[in-house]
This record gives sequence, structure tokens and C-alpha cells, in this order.
Amino acid sequence: MRNSKYNKKKIFNDPVYGFISLPFDLIFDIIEHPFFQRLRRIKQLGLTHLVYPGALHTRFHHAMGAMHLTMKALDVIKSKGQKVTKTERKATLIAILLHDIGHGPFSHALEYSIVGNVTHEDISSFFMQRLNEEFDGKLTLAIKIFENKYKKPFLHQLVSSQLDMDRLDYLRRDSFFTGVSEGVISSERIISMLNVEESNLVIEAKGIYSIEKFIIARRLMYWQVYLHKTVLSAERLVVKILARAKELALDSEELFCTDALRYFLYQNHDRNSFENNKDTLVRFSELDDFDITASIKMWQNHSDPILSSLCKSLVNRNLYKIDIRKKAFSKAEVDMHLNKLVSATGISGKEASYFIFTDSIKNNAYNPKKDKINLLFKNGEIKDIAEAADQLNINALTEEVVKHFICYPKQIMVDNLKNK
Amino acid sequence: MRNSKYNKKKIFNDPVYGFISLPFDLIFDIIEHPFFQRLRRIKQLGLTHLVYPGALHTRFHHAMGAMHLTMKALDVIKSKGQKVTKTERKATLIAILLHDIGHGPFSHALEYSIVGNVTHEDISSFFMQRLNEEFDGKLTLAIKIFENKYKKPFLHQLVSSQLDMDRLDYLRRDSFFTGVSEGVISSERIISMLNVEESNLVIEAKGIYSIEKFIIARRLMYWQVYLHKTVLSAERLVVKILARAKELALDSEELFCTDALRYFLYQNHDRNSFENNKDTLVRFSELDDFDITASIKMWQNHSDPILSSLCKSLVNRNLYKIDIRKKAFSKAEVDMHLNKLVSATGISGKEASYFIFTDSIKNNAYNPKKDKINLLFKNGEIKDIAEAADQLNINALTEEVVKHFICYPKQIMVDNLKNK
Amino acid sequence: MRNSKYNKKKIFNDPVYGFISLPFDLIFDIIEHPFFQRLRRIKQLGLTHLVYPGALHTRFHHAMGAMHLTMKALDVIKSKGQKVTKTERKATLIAILLHDIGHGPFSHALEYSIVGNVTHEDISSFFMQRLNEEFDGKLTLAIKIFENKYKKPFLHQLVSSQLDMDRLDYLRRDSFFTGVSEGVISSERIISMLNVEESNLVIEAKGIYSIEKFIIARRLMYWQVYLHKTVLSAERLVVKILARAKELALDSEELFCTDALRYFLYQNHDRNSFENNKDTLVRFSELDDFDITASIKMWQNHSDPILSSLCKSLVNRNLYKIDIRKKAFSKAEVDMHLNKLVSATGISGKEASYFIFTDSIKNNAYNPKKDKINLLFKNGEIKDIAEAADQLNINALTEEVVKHFICYPKQIMVDNLKNK
Amino acid sequence: MRNSKYNKKKIFNDPVYGFISLPFDLIFDIIEHPFFQRLRRIKQLGLTHLVYPGALHTRFHHAMGAMHLTMKALDVIKSKGQKVTKTERKATLIAILLHDIGHGPFSHALEYSIVGNVTHEDISSFFMQRLNEEFDGKLTLAIKIFENKYKKPFLHQLVSSQLDMDRLDYLRRDSFFTGVSEGVISSERIISMLNVEESNLVIEAKGIYSIEKFIIARRLMYWQVYLHKTVLSAERLVVKILARAKELALDSEELFCTDALRYFLYQNHDRNSFENNKDTLVRFSELDDFDITASIKMWQNHSDPILSSLCKSLVNRNLYKIDIRKKAFSKAEVDMHLNKLVSATGISGKEASYFIFTDSIKNNAYNPKKDKINLLFKNGEIKDIAEAADQLNINALTEEVVKHFICYPKQIMVDNLKNK
Repeated sequence: MRNSKYNKKKIFNDPVYGFISLPFDLIFDIIEHPFFQRLRRIKQLGLTHLVYPGALHTRFHHAMGAMHLTMKALDVIKSKGQKVTKTERKATLIAILLHDIGHGPFSHALEYSIVGNVTHEDISSFFMQRLNEEFDGKLTLAIKIFENKYKKPFLHQLVSSQLDMDRLDYLRRDSFFTGVSEGVISSERIISMLNVEESNLVIEAKGIYSIEKFIIARRLMYWQVYLHKTVLSAERLVVKILARAKELALDSEELFCTDALRYFLYQNHDRNSFENNKDTLVRFSELDDFDITASIKMWQNHSDPILSSLCKSLVNRNLYKIDIRKKAFSKAEVDMHLNKLVSATGISGKEASYFIFTDSIKNNAYNPKKDKINLLFKNGEIKDIAEAADQLNINALTEEVVKHFICYPKQIMVDNLKNK
Repeated sequence: MRNSKYNKKKIFNDPVYGFISLPFDLIFDIIEHPFFQRLRRIKQLGLTHLVYPGALHTRFHHAMGAMHLTMKALDVIKSKGQKVTKTERKATLIAILLHDIGHGPFSHALEYSIVGNVTHEDISSFFMQRLNEEFDGKLTLAIKIFENKYKKPFLHQLVSSQLDMDRLDYLRRDSFFTGVSEGVISSERIISMLNVEESNLVIEAKGIYSIEKFIIARRLMYWQVYLHKTVLSAERLVVKILARAKELALDSEELFCTDALRYFLYQNHDRNSFENNKDTLVRFSELDDFDITASIKMWQNHSDPILSSLCKSLVNRNLYKIDIRKKAFSKAEVDMHLNKLVSATGISGKEASYFIFTDSIKNNAYNPKKDKINLLFKNGEIKDIAEAADQLNINALTEEVVKHFICYPKQIMVDNLKNK
Repeated sequence: MRNSKYNKKKIFNDPVYGFISLPFDLIFDIIEHPFFQRLRRIKQLGLTHLVYPGALHTRFHHAMGAMHLTMKALDVIKSKGQKVTKTERKATLIAILLHDIGHGPFSHALEYSIVGNVTHEDISSFFMQRLNEEFDGKLTLAIKIFENKYKKPFLHQLVSSQLDMDRLDYLRRDSFFTGVSEGVISSERIISMLNVEESNLVIEAKGIYSIEKFIIARRLMYWQVYLHKTVLSAERLVVKILARAKELALDSEELFCTDALRYFLYQNHDRNSFENNKDTLVRFSELDDFDITASIKMWQNHSDPILSSLCKSLVNRNLYKIDIRKKAFSKAEVDMHLNKLVSATGISGKEASYFIFTDSIKNNAYNPKKDKINLLFKNGEIKDIAEAADQLNINALTEEVVKHFICYPKQIMVDNLKNK
Repeated sequence: MRNSKYNKKKIFNDPVYGFISLPFDLIFDIIEHPFFQRLRRIKQLGLTHLVYPGALHTRFHHAMGAMHLTMKALDVIKSKGQKVTKTERKATLIAILLHDIGHGPFSHALEYSIVGNVTHEDISSFFMQRLNEEFDGKLTLAIKIFENKYKKPFLHQLVSSQLDMDRLDYLRRDSFFTGVSEGVISSERIISMLNVEESNLVIEAKGIYSIEKFIIARRLMYWQVYLHKTVLSAERLVVKILARAKELALDSEELFCTDALRYFLYQNHDRNSFENNKDTLVRFSELDDFDITASIKMWQNHSDPILSSLCKSLVNRNLYKIDIRKKAFSKAEVDMHLNKLVSATGISGKEASYFIFTDSIKNNAYNPKKDKINLLFKNGEIKDIAEAADQLNINALTEEVVKHFICYPKQIMVDNLKNK
């Protein structure tokens, strides 16, 4: 198939940055590939739109945005005298474009339920290798940068670090589409202050306030959006739905589903499967929000009362009640809810655990154990942001926050179970 | 089912206006109804996101936005001394909230293919009547206003006219999510200049420039977004896909589909069906973007080469080529393309017409024959905007623009057909 | 004194575009020159802030913004294969940076009153020549481009034409600071569609809707902001104040004023004066909003009742009443007001004409007689926008709109006169 | 003279909020008063525009914006069941409208130099009392609320506290006009979560992240804008200019100045003067940015080399060099600079101290000793934000940050001194 040169100089409309242009033909061809086009059908924020109805943007759009910011960052770094060849530039852009390609629909839900023992990071690697084969090895350097095996670590750090273009794009994009202005960060200002020192990405010292604000914004987005209690409740509902469907499928119950979903429901697939069976990745690539949601809608009428009740709850937005607190929930507290449901509906304790369960979530705003955000001072000195900040001392910045939650059914879920 | 009073005072996040609050419990209950919740799963702009990737917002969000603007408009009108009772306010808000509830997924595609002889306006009415039954007649006044049978026509005009809150919201919202800033209108400024004269909605004369700009913005959005050639190409592809699927279904071919879609594919349903069979509306209400898209994805592997080729083209974004011009395309021009395809692939002429066809689109920016936008001058005089404008004379404003287009296959579609 | 290289790579903060960077040291040096720094003290929109209180932005900021857009436009044009040398780039940026440097404070007011027979365009030329001398001829090419004497007319067209970067910046900037969203134009979108054909600036045909919108936006900004009746009233009040002050000065009355203002009040200076006397331009360069406003504030207490009454009116925002209409005001209508004022206050008819006068304003949205906006079609054809547009026919677009107005005193101005 | 009712329902354009409407005739009349109109001529951020060229907005616009937010806040509080009478509403709005009326031009500069021993808070009180006399006691309740002597402290807290509408407006407005997006706060979101508990303003607990973000945003705006080193340098230059001018004036040197400035330069005025002499306040009310700047421009040519050199530096933006650090500067460090200047120019040590000096600045983001921001939990419990926050522990939030700086002349200032 031919694409004219003209077409490959495509410009994408983006409400966040205005326009995103594609600098290399190879990038155009990767974007056209079905492995990448599928990201058009996978929402970046899963079920967050149940709380923030504008949050329908896709992983496709985020990947384009992160690539756009990386281009800007490379321009800035070059203008400050750092050498970046055209080949390195192309490879870095491909690396960021593909950094999240391994995400499936409702990513964390899948990882918790039907795709076992393999992370989206693994799957990203599988996709990149497969694409590299199809494109005759042209992605080799991109993969090297992605895996941080290239001699210029700052290129990897643009793709993946605590100050990478991934975060810069998703914070701004998620803010834009949710309408939570707290997450707005000045990506342009931060990028203008990037630099490279001894092959590592640093930020000029005058940028300290912007970086602090970026860390805070990220933390707030976590608690206000990504871990919002209603979002959490909805995501756990999908986990339970898929787990129940898989349980039924492995029990040879008939379930409406697309071929791609059938592949993962009726058999167990894990890391090995992806490595040893070429089909697994292709099937995975066919799976998107539409397979899952269309099936869940159909399962509302399935004969299994657990499955149908869970699915009705999601489709009509009658989610679990959820309590969140700092202290873990005791077995007694969970059992109290379980017993109540068992006695009200006559289902088994095991079945009741689809409706009642406890778990925890955690977040740390800045984790200097992973990798540091380094400030470059005018005298050439380099300091970790956590040490350099005026006021936000290292403890405040780096302490992990853990919260525990319990989910239990609303009356309407109980009623649905009883009616069966 | 009980909802606490507290919950019904809900606030919705909206990236366009910030917050949208719900002023009445009844409105909360209508929004919670599955008939309304389904709008969360129907994109406002169908396949426009293939050109403007941000355009994923739903009919749910638009309906909320239009209601929000109507609240503001009623506040302004009241502050200028016009009496609007609480009952009228509630009814008007319900009318605008439900004004578009009859849209199905890929609305125009459906109307052209599987749902015959019934418009989305008809279906909106059916939904309102059904909801009115369920809510014990509490929607009666809203329906009256919607149908323009109430004694205060300005309430209807807020819901449906050339200056209604529907248009004000969709222009702004579609601009926001596409990133086409040309469509940005100052809804706040326009609303602040609304008034009522002899029971009809008017705009104060000083608002003339804002209104002209609004008409122009609407026209530009038509050509730049709603009737964008690639969007048109994609929408026609869905029409052809559904038409082919229906042809096969009526021929008793087995097709993967959800129950709701099956209902409309394997039988013909029209206005009568909606009127005489309670099920038809319920089935329609179950149909959304997910049913259609999940099925199209599966049909890529259907044994019918026409269907599978069309579906692959949509999923991988290999759309029809499309030429647009002012002059109609002749039969000879169409036949030229048809003959080429028939001889290249061996399919029949009738089958080839799924790939090659011509049609026209039209738009007029302001249609004074339908209803007028009236300006109120300080001396009490009222004039149609088309007469009052300085420069944009009536011809320019009101002339209908018609464009003709022809669709024909890209090489890749031809190749797919051949491979079969 | 030298500025280090580091400093000259300065970045300017701009709420409209984010950041504006300076690409050449020479540009940094020009910006540092007092002739350019004075633009920091001259508001872009004169007294418009009396109606739109945010409109306090300066000619300095606009000049920087127009330069920024010109950089973007040159990048786009280069990326489409048009050759632009570094020298041409630098010269074009300097030309746009200085295109409006000849504006004085309350520009039109000055031209109507104390600086006679010389336009701001003339004065811009004088400034450029003087700067060229100071910078050893380095501005020669910039001046050539500014005067449209260079062999590549598209460079001049970026600086001055019906689609120049001046207009693109001021519409967007004035919209931003006034809050009149009607004027928002998509400068980024328009720039992305610029091209060069036979050395002339053209816009790709698909940009037609953006251009139409740009023309309409400009027209609306004229009537809604630049020629807003209250703005007009205030600007005419300054004209009358300065005219009265000059009348008194030439009559050897003592007036508080800065040295720079004194230079222009107590002597007549015209085009000749600028050409033959090096001091005139320097004195002019010292004049800014602060000289005029501080003097007007002091003149509130001047012994001349005409001057003091006019000044009090401006300072306390008790402006003229103003009527605007399409038909000219007759001598009888003006005399009616004049006679009323004369009999109420006892001032002479000539003095009364400081309070009562008629004049006209005009605007045409698009003037194809001056220069055309040309569209480039895919087949290489070029057409004037006015011919190519669907609907906005040439008459509507190009017709000049003339409005007449009369100013007359509010009661409070009359009272002030009487109290004397 | 009377203004018609119609006029008093005025709507102000505001690029930040869209429109600001005036709810009471009395408020219209206060805004029209010359004491308030003068705020149109006083920039909110003094010389900040030398760094952020968009920052030209005035105290007038900020006062209007803060009033607008207070209206919104009162609406929210009322909608949650708290009683606020129309009289209280009007008084609160007047209190916030006038809360900063005592600011003069370059406020801190004035307080440090020509107006001694009286703060802008004192002067605000003097203005309110004078207005209350003129408006026949109609401001009595507003003054009571302003002074926190009214029985409903939450009204005062809206006007002045760590979460007042003053801060909410200025952070957002200053962000908007500087373009520093870090300062953007979600004023709408914060206001929607306000409530009243035991007559005190509280914020609902779910708003904790928005509040943390607000405190951080404020801190960042301090260091990035309000205490930006170049802004600091410019402000200190004005202080020194005015101090030198006053020194010369008290020494009977003749200086160009407006009458209002003369009043404060040639005599000492302090708190007593304002209290005992009606003229002092009137004279103060005549003083604005234009008096100061026009005079400084003229003083560039004054015969005193200190004054003229300082003034040239400001007008041409050749500011002091400034070093900032955590440790105080020693006398030896200061003397080193002083000696260098004395030996280079021959001026006295005392004169040199106009060019070389050290001082400190400080800021604490949240000061719980002053007043607390209290969170209201669902169980009715109330907690100080500093105790309730997850991670930003009380030390980090409340610690005062002190920085020391030294100013010394650039070479060009030295050269100017020498040339004399």
C-alpha cells in the first residue's frame, strides 16, 4: 500500500496544543498500523467519565500529545547546545509514541482479571518487537532508548522518568478533559527550562517552583481524579464483572462475546502465552473498550444472577458504595457486610465477595528512590529537588500515602440479586 | 428506589462551563433513567473523531450543557421583568434536556439504513411520552413546551429555534472538543442580551454583531467539521455497512450482533412499529455506539466480501476517497468508477454501489423562512436580523449552499475485495 | 555597554502565546533602545479601557506578538519549500517589530490635534531611519521590506497586507485583553495554511472558512470595540482637550506640562519639522501616555473654564453623550445643541464647539481595491477570497460602512461650565 | 446629578470572568466616586510589567473581581441554608469593594518613602469614613464588617482572611495577566465548597486538595511574580528615587511635579496629618501612577546626578543587579560594593547608599497563627487544614521563608553617574 509523501506530513488537530505535526514518514506509518489505531478505541481514563463526563479522550490522543511535547523538549535541549542527531530524534519520538501501547481496555481491570501475570509494560515491549520485525528493524534504536540501554540516558528520561513527557502530557490532557483546573501545569514553561548535564536530564534551578507545582498537581490529580472514590468503585466493578465472566467461562458457561474477548475469557493467557504464541498479541490487539462494554451490556440478561446483577449496576451507574479511610478494614467489618448480604439474598459467601471486598490504594507524589528530579544551579551544582526546595521538605514530598477502602452493595444491587 | 435529597442536588463537572448543577429533583430522576443514561454511550459527533480526535463528547454532556444555558437564559429573562414560574422553569429545563433524546448511535447512519421512516425527532417524542407515563404525568408541560403548544412561545424558542440553547451549547462544545476555535461563540454575551417581547424571544439590538458572528460560526462549523469531507466519507461508510448487514440479515445470513442490534437488523421497524409495539422503543434504547462498533469489528471477518471489506476499511481508517464540488456528478462519471471496480474485482454492479455512489449535502446559515432571529431596538421596534445587519445582506445570509460529492474506493479497499 | 550573549537570548512572558523568544541579538538590541522601550508606556487601545477595563496592553506587547507570529509564519513557509535566508528572516522580523513604532500616545488624538500633517506611518519611517543610522545600516533590508521595495513581496505582505501578522496579533490580543471572545481568531490555523505562489503570500483553499471568519471577526471588533460609542466619545474628548490646550499655549497661556509635551504644544510641528530638525523625533519619542494623562489631571484646575471642564469630564469619566446613525447630522441639529449650551452657560459659539460636534466613522471589512487575500487551490489556481467564497458575496464583504455621530455634553459638563 | 436606574444596572466586561454585574445602586454610586475611579489609574502589580509585560491590570479591576466572587460566595452560602439578609449582602459587597482603596501608586514604594507612618490599611479606613459621610451613613454596616465588629464573622472572613475573596481574585487575575499559569486556581470550585459553621467560614472537607493547591499556588506566585528578583529590583529603585526626591525637596530644591505629588514631597505627612487635615486624604486621592511616572521621566534631566541617574535607570529599564540568598549579607559585603562605587565616581558614601543596599523579604504560605482555614467534615467535625492534610505537614505549610538580597549598580548606572 502506498501513501503519498504529502499525506505523511499530516497535521492532527488537538484541542490541548492546537496542532500536532508528524515529523517523519516512519512515524506516520506506525500510527497507521492497526496496533496503534486500536488506541483510538481505548479511553485514557477508563471509567473516569462516570464522574467527569468529559474524560473520554483516548490513549491515541495522549500518545500523540506526549510525542508532541518530546519534540518541543528536544528542540529546547538542542538550542542549549546538546547534540541530538536526527536518528536519535526519530527514535526518541517513536519510543514515547509507543511507551503505553501495551495498555488494554480498562487496563488495570484487565490486569486484575482476565490477563494474568503480564503487565502492560511487558505487552508494550511485545508490541514494539513485533512492529520492529514488520518495519525491518527500523525501531531498534527506539527500543534501546525505551529500555534505557542507550548511551544517552536523557533520551530515555524524556520517555520515562519522574519528569517525563508522558506525565507532562497526561496531567495537562486529563485536566483539560475532566475540567479539573487544579491539574493544569505549565508544560511549556517546564520544557523551556530542561537541560542536559552529564548525559542526564536536569531542570534549571529557576524552575523549582514550576516543578514543585507539577508534583503537587500530580498528587492532587491522583486523589481528585485517578483515585476518586466513585471512579474506584466503578473500576472495581469491572474487575469483578470480568472475574465472574471468566469463572463462568472456565466453567463452560456460554457467554456473549466478541472473538477477541472469547480468546481471553475461555483460556488462561499469561506472559508465556504472549511469548510463545504469536496469536496472543494479535488477539490482544483486537480487544478494546467496545468488546468489553458491548459484552457487559449483553450480560445484563445472563442467567447467572451474580453476573447480571453486577452488569446492570455498571450500565445504569448504580455503583458500589465505598468508604475510604487511613486505617485498614478489619475482617469483622467485612464479614458484617458479607453476612448481611448472604442472609438477605441467599447467595453463598464466595458469591457475596463479588459485592463486598476491601483493598488499599497508595500514591507518592515524588519518589526519590526511583529516580530523582535534578536541579541545575547557575554555578553548575546539581541537587535533587527534594533537597533544594524551600519549604516542601523531603518528608512531605516523598512519603507514600496509603488509603484503605471497602466496597459494599447499594440497596438496588441487593434488590436485583433478590429478584433473580 | 430511594435517593437522598442530598444526592439529587448533584453538581456535574464540565470542562466547558466548569460546573452544571441540577435545580430540581425530578430532573435528577430523569437523568438517572436508563433512557437518559444511554446518551452517555452515544457520541455527539459520530465519527468526527476520526478527523478531530478530541471529538468524543457524548449526547449526554451536550444535553446537560444545553440545560445549563437554558437556566442562565431564564435567569436573564426574569431579571428583565418577564414572569417565569417555577413550574414553567422546570418544564422548560426538562424540554431542553430531552430535546435530542431520540438520537441513536451514528444517528444519521441509522436513519439512512436500519431504522426506516422514522426521524430522531419522532423518537424523541416517543421517549418523552413513555417517560411521562413513568413519571405520572409530570412531564406534560415540558412536552407542551417542546411541541410549541404552550401559551408562552419564548419557552419553546429557547428549546428550539434559530437562536436556541441547543445551538449555543453545541457550537461551543463542539469547538471545545474539536479544537476548532472558529466555532467559539460568546454564549454568555448572547444570553445576557436575550429578552422577551410579546411572548417571543428577541435579542437586544446591540447584540447584532454577536448574532452575526454566531451565524457565521455555525456556518463555518458546518463546512469545517460537521460536513468535513473525511467525516462525510466515514459516515457514509457506516451507512453502507449497516445497509449491507441488513441486506444479509433479511436474507437470513448469520451475523454477530447484540440483541438490540439484532432486533433492528433482522426485521424492518418503522414509525408504526414504534407506535404499536412497546418493545421497539425499549430495544432502541438499548442500542448505542458500542453495539454498532463491536459488531462492525467482528464483521471484518464475515464471509461476505462486501461486508468484510467495508468493515476493515472503517476499523483501519481506510475510508472512501471523496470529491466535493458545486456541480452534480453525472451518471457517466459514476459509471466510470463502477465499471472500473466491476472489472477489477468481478463483483456485480449492485455490489459495487456499496463502494461508489454520489449524493449531495446542503446548509444554510440562517433560514428566515423557518423562524426569524428578531432584534429589539431601544425604541421598541423589532426587526429580523437579516434586515437589520449592516453588511451581511439577506442574500448572503440566507442562501442555501448545496454541494455534491462522489465516493469511490481507495486501492486498499479494492485489494481487500480481490483477496476474497 | 555590552549585554552578554546569554541575556540576549531572552524569553518574554506573554499571556496570549505563552512565551516569545528573541531569535537574534540585533533584535534584542533594538528592543532595548529607548525608542522601542517607550512603547511600554503607550497603550495599544488608548482609552478603550474605559469600556473594557482589561484593555491596558501596550504597543510594546503587540509588536512582540506580531514578531512572534511572523516567526511562525516564516517557519511554515520554509517548511513548504520556499527559500527564506537567515538575513531575510532577520530583516522581516525587524520590519514587523517596528511597523507601528511611530504611534504616539492616544495616537489618533495626537494626529487630530497637536502633531499636524504627519501620520504615524511617516513617523515610523523616521524612527527606522534613525535606528538604521545608530545601528550602522543593519536595518537597511528591513526598511526595504517594510517599504515593499524588496524582490520578495511576500515578506512585505507578512508585515503589511490584509492578512498580515499585525492584524492576526492585534485581533487576538485585543480579544484577550478586552474579553470580547468574538474577536478570537485561530492565528495558528491560518498561519499553518499560508504559502507563497509567484513570490506572493497566498492561503491554501481549505483555509477559506478561517479567512472568512477572520474578516468577520475583524469587522465585529471594529464596531464592538474600536469604534464603540463610549470609546469614540472618550477619544474625541482627548482630541478636544489637546486642541484647547494648544489654542491656549499658542496664545501664551501658561500650562502645566512635561518638556516633551511643551515642545509640541507651544510650537507647531509637522512633517517638515520631523525631517529638518533632529530634535523633533527625539522629543516625540519622549512623549507617552504619562505625559498626556498627568497633564490632563493637572489641567482640571486650570483657570480656563473650557479646558478645566473638559479635563474633569475625562478624569471622572463623565464623557460626551453620543448618538450614532447611518444618516448624517444636519447643521440644524448641531445648532440646536449649540444654542442650548450657549444660552445655558454664556460661552461663545466657538467655545461651545468643544462640547458639540459631528463627524463620521467608517470601516470596510475587506477592501479588495487595496490588496487582495488570495486563495491557492490544489490545481494551482489562485482566486481572490471575495470571488471564491460560497456565500459571503463580494458586495457584502467589501462594501464600506459609514456611520455618523454627534457628541454633546451631559448635564454635569454643563454644570461644571456654569460653576466657573 | 442623578443617574437613571437603567445606567446603574451596569455590566462590566472582564476577561477573567466574562461579565461582572452591579447588584445595587449604591454600589454603582460608590464606583462612580472619584475616590474609586482613581483605582483605574493604579496598577495592581506596580512595576511587575517590566518582567511580565501583560501585568498592567489595575486595582479597579481587582476590586470589581473580588466583589464578583463575593457575590458568588454569598449565593453558595445562602443555598446551603445560611441566612444572609439583603442589607448584609450589600454591606459585605461594599466592604470587599473598598478593602484596598487605600493603596496609592507603587504602594509599597510610597509607604517606604514619601508617606510616612501610615499604612494603606489605615488609609482604606480613612477613605471609607469619608465616603460614609458623603453617603449619609449608608456604609456603616460595611465598615463594621470590614473591621470585624459585626456579629456574623463569616462576612468579614469573606473580605479578609486566609481564604478571602481578595486572594481568590488576585491569584487568578494576576495569573491571567502575567501568563503564569502556575497561579491558576479554581476559584469556582473553592467557592462551591464554602459553608458556614457557628458563624465562621469553613470549607467542606472534600475541598482539601483544592485548598492545598490554593496555598501552594499562592506561595509560588509570591516567589515567581510578587517577589521576582527583577520586580524587587525595580520596586526598590522607585523607593530610592522617591526618597532622593523628598530629600532634595525638603532641602528646597526645585523639582517638576504635579500638585498632588508636591504636597507629599515638600512636606512630611503621616497618620496625624490624615486624621487632622481633610486635605491630606483628598490630595492623596489625586495621586496615581501617572503623577509618579511623569515626574520620574522629567527628573531624568534634573541637575542632581543621583536623582537623574536613578531615574534614567528606571525609564530605560537598566535596573540594579540583585543577588538573593538565604544568608544575610554582611556589612563587609555591602561595604565592598560601596567603596568600589565611591572610588569610581567620587560620590559620598551616603549618596552611594542610593545604589547599594541590602534588605530581606519573607513569605509564609499559610499562617495558622493569624487565622485558620477550617475544614468541615461530614460528621460535623472541624479541623485546621494544616492538621488535616495528608502530606503537606504543618511545618512545611506554615514555616516562614526569609530571603536576603543585596542591590548594586550595573555598569551603565555607574557610567551615568560619572558622566555628570
